[in-house]
Amino acid sequence: MAPESIKRMEKTKVAIVGLGTVGTGVARLLLDHGERTTRHAGRSIWLEKAVVRDLNKPRDVELPEGVLTDRLEEVTDNDEIECVVQLVGGVEAARSIMIQLLESGKDVVTANKALLAEYGAELFDRARELGRSIAFDAAVAGGIPIVTNIGQCLSANRIESIHGILNGTCNFIISQMEEQGISYHEAVEEAQRRGYAEADPTMDVDGSDAAQKLAILSHLAFGARVHWKDISRQGIESLSPTDLRFAGELGYRLKSLAVARLEGDELELHVGTQLVRRDSPLAEVGGAYNAIRLVGDAVGRVWFHGMGAGRMPTASAVVADLIDSVVGRTAITFRTLQLWSERPARVLPKPSATAATRYYLRFTVQDHPGVLADITGALSKQDISIASFIQHEQHEGPSDRIPLIIMTHQTTVGAADRALAEIHQLEMVHEPAMRLRILD
Amino acid sequence: MAPESIKRMEKTKVAIVGLGTVGTGVARLLLDHGERTTRHAGRSIWLEKAVVRDLNKPRDVELPEGVLTDRLEEVTDNDEIECVVQLVGGVEAARSIMIQLLESGKDVVTANKALLAEYGAELFDRARELGRSIAFDAAVAGGIPIVTNIGQCLSANRIESIHGILNGTCNFIISQMEEQGISYHEAVEEAQRRGYAEADPTMDVDGSDAAQKLAILSHLAFGARVHWKDISRQGIESLSPTDLRFAGELGYRLKSLAVARLEGDELELHVGTQLVRRDSPLAEVGGAYNAIRLVGDAVGRVWFHGMGAGRMPTASAVVADLIDSVVGRTAITFRTLQLWSERPARVLPKPSATAATRYYLRFTVQDHPGVLADITGALSKQDISIASFIQHEQHEGPSDRIPLIIMTHQTTVGAADRALAEIHQLEMVHEPAMRLRILD
Repeated sequence: MAPESIKRMEKTKVAIVGLGTVGTGVARLLLDHGERTTRHAGRSIWLEKAVVRDLNKPRDVELPEGVLTDRLEEVTDNDEIECVVQLVGGVEAARSIMIQLLESGKDVVTANKALLAEYGAELFDRARELGRSIAFDAAVAGGIPIVTNIGQCLSANRIESIHGILNGTCNFIISQMEEQGISYHEAVEEAQRRGYAEADPTMDVDGSDAAQKLAILSHLAFGARVHWKDISRQGIESLSPTDLRFAGELGYRLKSLAVARLEGDELELHVGTQLVRRDSPLAEVGGAYNAIRLVGDAVGRVWFHGMGAGRMPTASAVVADLIDSVVGRTAITFRTLQLWSERPARVLPKPSATAATRYYLRFTVQDHPGVLADITGALSKQDISIASFIQHEQHEGPSDRIPLIIMTHQTTVGAADRALAEIHQLEMVHEPAMRLRILD
Repeated sequence: MAPESIKRMEKTKVAIVGLGTVGTGVARLLLDHGERTTRHAGRSIWLEKAVVRDLNKPRDVELPEGVLTDRLEEVTDNDEIECVVQLVGGVEAARSIMIQLLESGKDVVTANKALLAEYGAELFDRARELGRSIAFDAAVAGGIPIVTNIGQCLSANRIESIHGILNGTCNFIISQMEEQGISYHEAVEEAQRRGYAEADPTMDVDGSDAAQKLAILSHLAFGARVHWKDISRQGIESLSPTDLRFAGELGYRLKSLAVARLEGDELELHVGTQLVRRDSPLAEVGGAYNAIRLVGDAVGRVWFHGMGAGRMPTASAVVADLIDSVVGRTAITFRTLQLWSERPARVLPKPSATAATRYYLRFTVQDHPGVLADITGALSKQDISIASFIQHEQHEGPSDRIPLIIMTHQTTVGAADRALAEIHQLEMVHEPAMRLRILD
């Protein structure tokens, strides 16, 4: 039962590949705060090499003589280096580097979610064959240690659902629209100015980034085998200040959520904007923060909340993984959990049409007798009952474009599809309805 | 680096000592959901014995033939039992059982915070001498895995502060007072009716329980050596609905918090009711929930929120610890962290008079010219400046007992002590001021 004895004050040599934002943070923690890693690892963690593409680029960290190199072989050929932090972005190059590292006998720590979402199965299989391990807590939700919490701390539970605010860019944009009353495009520009959104924010705002993270968490928590591209995604591009205003009036906030929910043996998965009750802990998650609400059958509801990105929060997760790898905890977890292995999937994806939910529906209609009767008639035909609705008196703006809000009781995605298809045929209804789920 | 290889599908025999609320939950998880523990441990975890005092007491769990016993020796004499969940309450008997278990070669998992707060040093030393381990995540904050998060997941950080709602009984009582507008005594009765408070709730409501948990967390997060009785405690017994009403009017909620905050090499520790801004995640923690806000220098602010007590949430934490012990992760952590060891304390307690804080002060005064001048004069003499104050017109009630609320800017505990001592001498001030800290 006991692991091999930890020899105190040994030195374990490690390396970093990729010295961008997060890599620089990791180097700083290792170089400037060695006493912490020593205390937690029971040995000194020694940064032997940092591999970069461009040796001449200015860096935000001062590296000791001889550490910086542009040759990966200085790591792969050095048998004294036991564990490598792999922080190269993208997918194809990162995959090749990861395989070289594993094949040269290194345990690997990574924060690259896109890589794992795409090549997780191959990489984990290869690591197992080679008797090595991969740690990846920083790949999801930055500083929030959600991977260790699901894989280790909550292991007595059947996880029943995960609701995550996993994309800080989306959350910042929505928060700005809400707080400043600005448009989606103005909020994106503000996010870019502050460094919370990239020049091309597509992967963030269209839900791809959150879907990749959700695919990883679903694998870990439910034993699901799902490719992130098969997860239904609703981006935030079409959100309007009108929706934020109405949601506020109804006692809700809007949050872009990644959701995995077990129903029997089926797993419902989707990413999209939802109405979250104002007094719920998820509603209070502002700005660039991430949060996860998890329900386990033993533990009940648990929330985690913290910085989902950024240099030092992500470095915090990477260095914790590095310590776990160096002391041997990762090897144990990696072997017992058998992630991305040949084990059969424990759950199957739920066909989305059968998923149950409540909806917020915003129609843009002409102020004309009969329009409400036609819309409610179409809903009623699909057995969708109405919990509340709002239509304000129109004091300004054109009277032929009036917003009409309907909050439904529980229904299914399929029933809503059918009702909306009929409603969109109505002459007095102008544009496709805005349709958002309401979180229970 | 690698731990000894985990042999798949081996059987590891374990035992439970104490089959009360939590013990019953642990037995259920092991007996009814063995597939989970097997999946996470890579081997089957077999409940061999459950030791109780009274064999005839009815139990909420069906145990296989031969498991139940009232003889501890059936565990200590059985060399095949590797790990024992020790859930005996109280302190002295629990200590003796713990030592017998360690001396018979068992790793131990416990949820007994009082035991650790009192005898942690002795027990951990003994475990180390014997090459055994103690896991205790369930001892603090029930289902929230805060011990593993601090000791393992956030190990790259210097922890700078911990603010915890660690006592669900207090939180429930305050929530009831706030939501139902009832008195402290009515709320205590309601908590007792619902099983959230014991017949004698003293240890909960006077802050002792939270102080014991805070002492354990401070040890873990800061390397502090502090006895829980040396932590300053303010109970909730003197809270009045008036304070909840004024706090609400000012945009705050009241929460009983356990606080550890680093300033330089000094650690400020206290337990007491504080004003928490309504839009902060801690303010949303209602009913019997627990929550912890932690600040690390790398990760920034992180919040954890979940059930702080109850059969299954606590059992969730116990069984996770049991799995960690069985697979060998606990042994690694236990050895590297060197908890309650001879290592010198990394921080010293901060003398409470020098601790900085903002205050909410409620005075009960006569409506008389000069009273405000006298009070503000006494504050000003101690350099305490006023951020805001409220005195409402008195439409009902006696005009000689008027509540006057003052919110101060940052000051120190010592300065407030001196100002209040002077104010309490004033003839027009009726009773000692209610004095609550305001959380930044």
